[in-house]
Amino acid sequence: MPETAKTARIVQTQYFSFESLALENGKKFGPVILAYETHGELNKDKSNAILILHALSGDAHAAGVHEGKNNPGWWDSMIGSGKAFDTDRYFVICSNVLGGCKGSTGPSSVNPKTEKPYALDFPLISIGDIVNCQKRLIDFLGIEKLLTVVGGSMGGMQVLSWLVKYPKEIRSAIPIATAIKHSPQQIAFNEVGRQAIMADPHWNSGNYYGSSLPAKGLAVARMIGHITYMSDVSMTEKFGRQKKNNGQNVKFSADFEVEGYLRYRGDNFVKRFDANSYLYITKAIDNFDASGGRSLQEVLEGIKAKVLVIAFKSDWLYPAYQSKEIVKACKLSGIEATYCEIDSTYGHDAFLLEVEEETHLISHFLKKVFYEYEVTGEYEI
Amino acid sequence: MPETAKTARIVQTQYFSFESLALENGKKFGPVILAYETHGELNKDKSNAILILHALSGDAHAAGVHEGKNNPGWWDSMIGSGKAFDTDRYFVICSNVLGGCKGSTGPSSVNPKTEKPYALDFPLISIGDIVNCQKRLIDFLGIEKLLTVVGGSMGGMQVLSWLVKYPKEIRSAIPIATAIKHSPQQIAFNEVGRQAIMADPHWNSGNYYGSSLPAKGLAVARMIGHITYMSDVSMTEKFGRQKKNNGQNVKFSADFEVEGYLRYRGDNFVKRFDANSYLYITKAIDNFDASGGRSLQEVLEGIKAKVLVIAFKSDWLYPAYQSKEIVKACKLSGIEATYCEIDSTYGHDAFLLEVEEETHLISHFLKKVFYEYEVTGEYEI
Repeated sequence: MPETAKTARIVQTQYFSFESLALENGKKFGPVILAYETHGELNKDKSNAILILHALSGDAHAAGVHEGKNNPGWWDSMIGSGKAFDTDRYFVICSNVLGGCKGSTGPSSVNPKTEKPYALDFPLISIGDIVNCQKRLIDFLGIEKLLTVVGGSMGGMQVLSWLVKYPKEIRSAIPIATAIKHSPQQIAFNEVGRQAIMADPHWNSGNYYGSSLPAKGLAVARMIGHITYMSDVSMTEKFGRQKKNNGQNVKFSADFEVEGYLRYRGDNFVKRFDANSYLYITKAIDNFDASGGRSLQEVLEGIKAKVLVIAFKSDWLYPAYQSKEIVKACKLSGIEATYCEIDSTYGHDAFLLEVEEETHLISHFLKKVFYEYEVTGEYEI
Repeated sequence: MPETAKTARIVQTQYFSFESLALENGKKFGPVILAYETHGELNKDKSNAILILHALSGDAHAAGVHEGKNNPGWWDSMIGSGKAFDTDRYFVICSNVLGGCKGSTGPSSVNPKTEKPYALDFPLISIGDIVNCQKRLIDFLGIEKLLTVVGGSMGGMQVLSWLVKYPKEIRSAIPIATAIKHSPQQIAFNEVGRQAIMADPHWNSGNYYGSSLPAKGLAVARMIGHITYMSDVSMTEKFGRQKKNNGQNVKFSADFEVEGYLRYRGDNFVKRFDANSYLYITKAIDNFDASGGRSLQEVLEGIKAKVLVIAFKSDWLYPAYQSKEIVKACKLSGIEATYCEIDSTYGHDAFLLEVEEETHLISHFLKKVFYEYEVTGEYEI
């Protein structure tokens, strides 16, 4: 039975730290703190752990609420008792990414050497670096093999990175609405967002901590994002050409509902996200290539993990053909892969909104993987 | 035989002015200057005149070169001896829009009352106002009936406006890659561009003339535009994930070719376009509704002009379904309308690039309309 608001589970953010991380570019970086939250209980043989991987603007708070607050996590509809990631059955973990601004070490963190925020002294990071940090957390939690790794968008890139880097440490992988690598169009949208941030004089080459924030630039970046997260159809259904009755008669104010929505989302984002994190994380996304320049088929050869790939028909930011490329590489390499294209009008946002369809697909997939484990007992400690 | 660069026709910008224009919002505005250029000769009975209508960033310089310069017009591939708009046969006119910054009166023009640039004292204008100015120019040239009005994107909106406002003054109309009205997604892209401009502190509520320009904001707006003008496929073909070998090792510099291209196009645009014109013109586009809230079918009832509608398969900014809506309204109202969807990968830019296909379609359509006129002699003076 799904939880109601009243019975929503209280969760607490926890922190795991380690001294040093070998970055994929060969440099060392540290110390690293990861903010994470967990849901459910790890079973005796530690075979029921699921790692949830968040998208660009997500965080460790994937489900439940914080004590005294009323802020359900970003995937609360999917994680909980009786939900897709059933916390009565599974142990669910979600950590904020390296480079983020929600408790994990990122450009807004204080550099212990200078006692000032890193700003642009923070190293360029990769999706692989983000995943290597998560692996340290999983090791720390004493989990040798994850039941699954799952995420949408940038979360899906982390899923693919786990699959390639740690194939023996996962039983399955669920990449949702994602790509093996960004197309130039996807890079272009991120780049314009970065340009908008860096065009803001308050950005000041990244040194804005403790003074005015590059709020307008970050808001523009977020507005561009929001357009790409919705579909032509979902925007038409939500806003049409409805005008705002704002009583104002100011030139170039928000006349249309859609304009008001974008401004609201842009301004709100500034309150909860760090502009430098936006630069670092989007750059990591753009540079990501799951197969490292080789063919993905070749890279996946011999991997035993099962894969469920989900795409959405109206998602034009991560079009279904990119998900099909993942499936094709899996199939050619001999991986047992299932593909489902959900007929949604929500565009890229669908991975957060198509709860019923996703629940159906994911809960069955997980039970199958979990049950097979139980029967074969392949992984005993 | 197409002209070569050496034999390119020299054209000169001309100016037409009038004292006062009744704006569609009921207010009066003036004086108005329109910059325009012409190609070919008006025939004796003035039946061979074609009005070319430019898009957002276009101008009166549609073809040929200016004396001592090497700058072919924006549709030079389509206008000239032996081309789609054959200047051996037709008299071709193109004027810069009201609100523009290429010789016609716009926000950067000097307000004779204050002897300072209008800036935001310039009135909000509509596509209808732009067309009413063109009508004054056509009257001034002594042309009672145009052979055709033609344009892509915002040019196509002017075509539709001509069709609705002056159906008896045109024999045909060719709207290309356009829409009856903007969808919320189209409004959203324009709105983010406007926000980027207004976020630039140099914009200074529009009062930047004679001091620093809102160059970074306008560049970001243009970059967003360029993404929407291309297709996923054309970007992949043109750039792939090719990296720039720029010798730099600066964080968040342009690593990918596509990033370098966007920055170049953005920075270049600033040299040739006025940020306030960008605001006014995009707002006119967003507010445009060819049917004024009624059904287009109803509005077009009884119109005799023939219509050729052209769309492009990969154009996701002005998707083909929007062109089909125009065709449907024409058909239902009894207008003789032809629809062609060109199988191009160029995206919205296709209307400037698919010269061969467009030449084939347009030259045949024009000959038919022109020849019918010659035979029936319906319009004699």
